[in-house]
Amino acid sequence: MEQANPRAGSARNRKVVLRDYISRAPREDDMALVDGGAVPLRVPEGAAGPAVLVKNLYLSCDPYMRGRMRDFHGSYIPPFKPGSVIEGLGVARVVDSTHPGFVAGDIVSGMTGWEEYSLIDKPEQLNKIQQSDIPLSYHLGLLGMPGFTAYVGFYEICSPKKGEFVFVSAASGAVGQIVGQLAKLHGCYVVGSAGTNQKVELLKDKFGFDEAFNYKEEPDLTAALKRYFPEGIDIYFENVGGPMLDAVLLNMRMHGRIAVCGMVSQHGMTDPSGIHNLFCLVPKRISMKGFIQSDYIKLFPQFVDYMTKHYKDGKIEYVEDMSIGLENAPAAFVGLFSGKNVGKQVVCVSQE
Amino acid sequence: MEQANPRAGSARNRKVVLRDYISRAPREDDMALVDGGAVPLRVPEGAAGPAVLVKNLYLSCDPYMRGRMRDFHGSYIPPFKPGSVIEGLGVARVVDSTHPGFVAGDIVSGMTGWEEYSLIDKPEQLNKIQQSDIPLSYHLGLLGMPGFTAYVGFYEICSPKKGEFVFVSAASGAVGQIVGQLAKLHGCYVVGSAGTNQKVELLKDKFGFDEAFNYKEEPDLTAALKRYFPEGIDIYFENVGGPMLDAVLLNMRMHGRIAVCGMVSQHGMTDPSGIHNLFCLVPKRISMKGFIQSDYIKLFPQFVDYMTKHYKDGKIEYVEDMSIGLENAPAAFVGLFSGKNVGKQVVCVSQE
Repeated sequence: MEQANPRAGSARNRKVVLRDYISRAPREDDMALVDGGAVPLRVPEGAAGPAVLVKNLYLSCDPYMRGRMRDFHGSYIPPFKPGSVIEGLGVARVVDSTHPGFVAGDIVSGMTGWEEYSLIDKPEQLNKIQQSDIPLSYHLGLLGMPGFTAYVGFYEICSPKKGEFVFVSAASGAVGQIVGQLAKLHGCYVVGSAGTNQKVELLKDKFGFDEAFNYKEEPDLTAALKRYFPEGIDIYFENVGGPMLDAVLLNMRMHGRIAVCGMVSQHGMTDPSGIHNLFCLVPKRISMKGFIQSDYIKLFPQFVDYMTKHYKDGKIEYVEDMSIGLENAPAAFVGLFSGKNVGKQVVCVSQE
Repeated sequence: MEQANPRAGSARNRKVVLRDYISRAPREDDMALVDGGAVPLRVPEGAAGPAVLVKNLYLSCDPYMRGRMRDFHGSYIPPFKPGSVIEGLGVARVVDSTHPGFVAGDIVSGMTGWEEYSLIDKPEQLNKIQQSDIPLSYHLGLLGMPGFTAYVGFYEICSPKKGEFVFVSAASGAVGQIVGQLAKLHGCYVVGSAGTNQKVELLKDKFGFDEAFNYKEEPDLTAALKRYFPEGIDIYFENVGGPMLDAVLLNMRMHGRIAVCGMVSQHGMTDPSGIHNLFCLVPKRISMKGFIQSDYIKLFPQFVDYMTKHYKDGKIEYVEDMSIGLENAPAAFVGLFSGKNVGKQVVCVSQE
C-alpha cells in the first residue's frame, strides 16, 4: 500500500476526485483515482496560517456525503468541487505541523481528504485522539460522528422514557446500531429494520434488539410495523424517508417523536412518491425534528466517556465494514446506497 | 325562522343529517335538512343522568368536521353517524336543565347538534358564557376553539421571538386571522396568503399583516415566498398542507418551527402528490409539531381574558361570515373548502 517513504522529502499522493456533479445515486465511475504527483512531506513555507500535514489512515464513508455531490449550495455544507479531492472524516497521523496544538506523530480525527496525504489548513477543527485499546478506526463510528449522531438524536431529540417503544430504520448501519443499543440501555423496547436477513440476525444476536425484520421481505410496511408494535411507536429514529416514513406515521402513538437525521435528506430529492401521511401529525400530536450532531458539540466529551465505558464493559457492541486500500473507496461509498455494507463502512488507507 | 313557541310543551325540530360517509371534499347534497318531528321542551324524565335541553342560536362551520364525515375511526374524535344529526360547536340558550350547573336562560357554548333544539347529555362539557358587549357568535371564533387554536399554536408550539418572520396560510380564516394579529402584537413580521384579492386586502387593511398575497395568482409558490421572505421564514402556521407546505419548507430559516393544525389532516388523505421537501428538516434543523387545542385547556381562561381585553382595546380585529338559517348550514360548510367564506364561518339558527 505504501507509496513513499515518509522520511524522504516527498511522497507520491494518490487521491480520489469527484468527476462531476450528480443528482442520482452515486456510481463508482462518478469518482476517479488519480495520481496527485509528489507532495512535500512538510507544511509549505509561506502558508496563510498554521497548518498540519497528515498521513491518512482511515476514511469514513457516510451517507451525507452524497449531498455534497450535488450542485446545490443551499445546504449546511458546501458541495465538493468537480476535479478536486473528495473530503470526508478520517483518522490520520500528523507528519508535520506549524500549529502549536499538534506535533508529528499525533493521531487526529476530523475533516480530511480522500488521499494519502492531506494538508489541513484549519487544524483547530481536528480532534487529537488519546489512544487506548479501542481500534483507531472506531473514532469514525462508535466514538465519532455517527455514534455522536445516535447519542444526540436519542437523548436530546427523542426525549426517551423507560418502557417506550422505539423503532430504528437502517438499524445495522453506523448510526442505527448505536441508537438501538442506547435505547435498550435506557429500558426501551426496540425493533430495527434492515435490508438483508444477515443484518436482521446481527440486530437480534449481536446488538440485542428485541425484534428486527427485513423490510425487503415485507409487502406491506404498515402491516409489518403493526405486527411489531401492536400498541404503536413512541420514538422513530428516521434514517431512510420514503415509504417507511409513511408507514411509521400511521403506526405512531399519541405524542410520538420522530428524530430526523441522515438519509431522508437524500431520498427526498429523488423520491417521486412524496410523503403522504403527515396528516397523522395533528391527531397524534407528533413532533418531527431535524438535527445535526455538530450543534451539540459541547456534549462530545461526555459522549466519548459514555461510549468508551460502555464499550469496554461489553454493554455496547460495534460492527464495522472495512475496505482495504484507497482505490476501493469509491466502491465502498457506493455500496452504502445499496445496503452492501454490514455495519459502519470505513476505508483503510494505511495501517502504517 | 322560529318554528315553535318555546312556551308550548313541544316544538318542531328541523335538523341537518349526514347522508353517508364521504372520502372526497363535501358537497351540499351530502347533507340533508330533515324534519325531526316534535321534541318536548323539557329534559325527558328517566334520563340516564343530568342533561340540558338547549335552543341553538349559532353553529360553527369548522374544517376539522370534514374528518368526521369519513368512515375512519382512528382519529381523536369519532366519525358522524350517517342518518344522524351533524355535531358541531355552537352557542345556545338553555331551555331546561336537570344539571345543577345550568338553569333555563343560561347562554352556553360547546358541542351541540345542527338542529334547532338539542338534548345534551354531557352538560359538564358546556361552557357558560358571561354575556358582555361582545357578540355571542364570537364565542365560536375569536373567543372559541379557532381563537384558542391560534393562541395555543402560536405561543405554545411556535416559541415566537420578537422580530421573527412569520408566515400564515389560509390567513383570513378563523384561525389564521388571529395568528397573524397575535404575531404582530408580539413584534413579528407577518405575511399571510389567501385565495382572493378581497381577502388579501382584508389581511393588510383590517388585520394589519405586513404583507399578503393571493396564492392562486402565484405560478411559483417557492418564488413568491422568497420574494416576501428574502431572509426566510422562522415560523409557519400550517393550515393547508400540499404544495404550500413544500414551498415553505424550501424557504424556512435555520431552526424554524412549523405548527401543524387543521386542514393538513384533510388534504393529506387526498393529496396525490405528497410532500417532497422534508429533506429540508435536517440541514435547517426544523421542527414540525402537530397539536390540538384541547390539550392546553388549562390556558383557556387566560386566553379569554387576553382576547377580550385586546378586542375591546381595538388591538385585535375579528371578521366573521354569517349565514342565516339552519337550512343554509350545508352550503356554508361546503363553502369552507372552496374558500367562499370571508372570515370565520358561522350559521345563525335563531337570533331569538
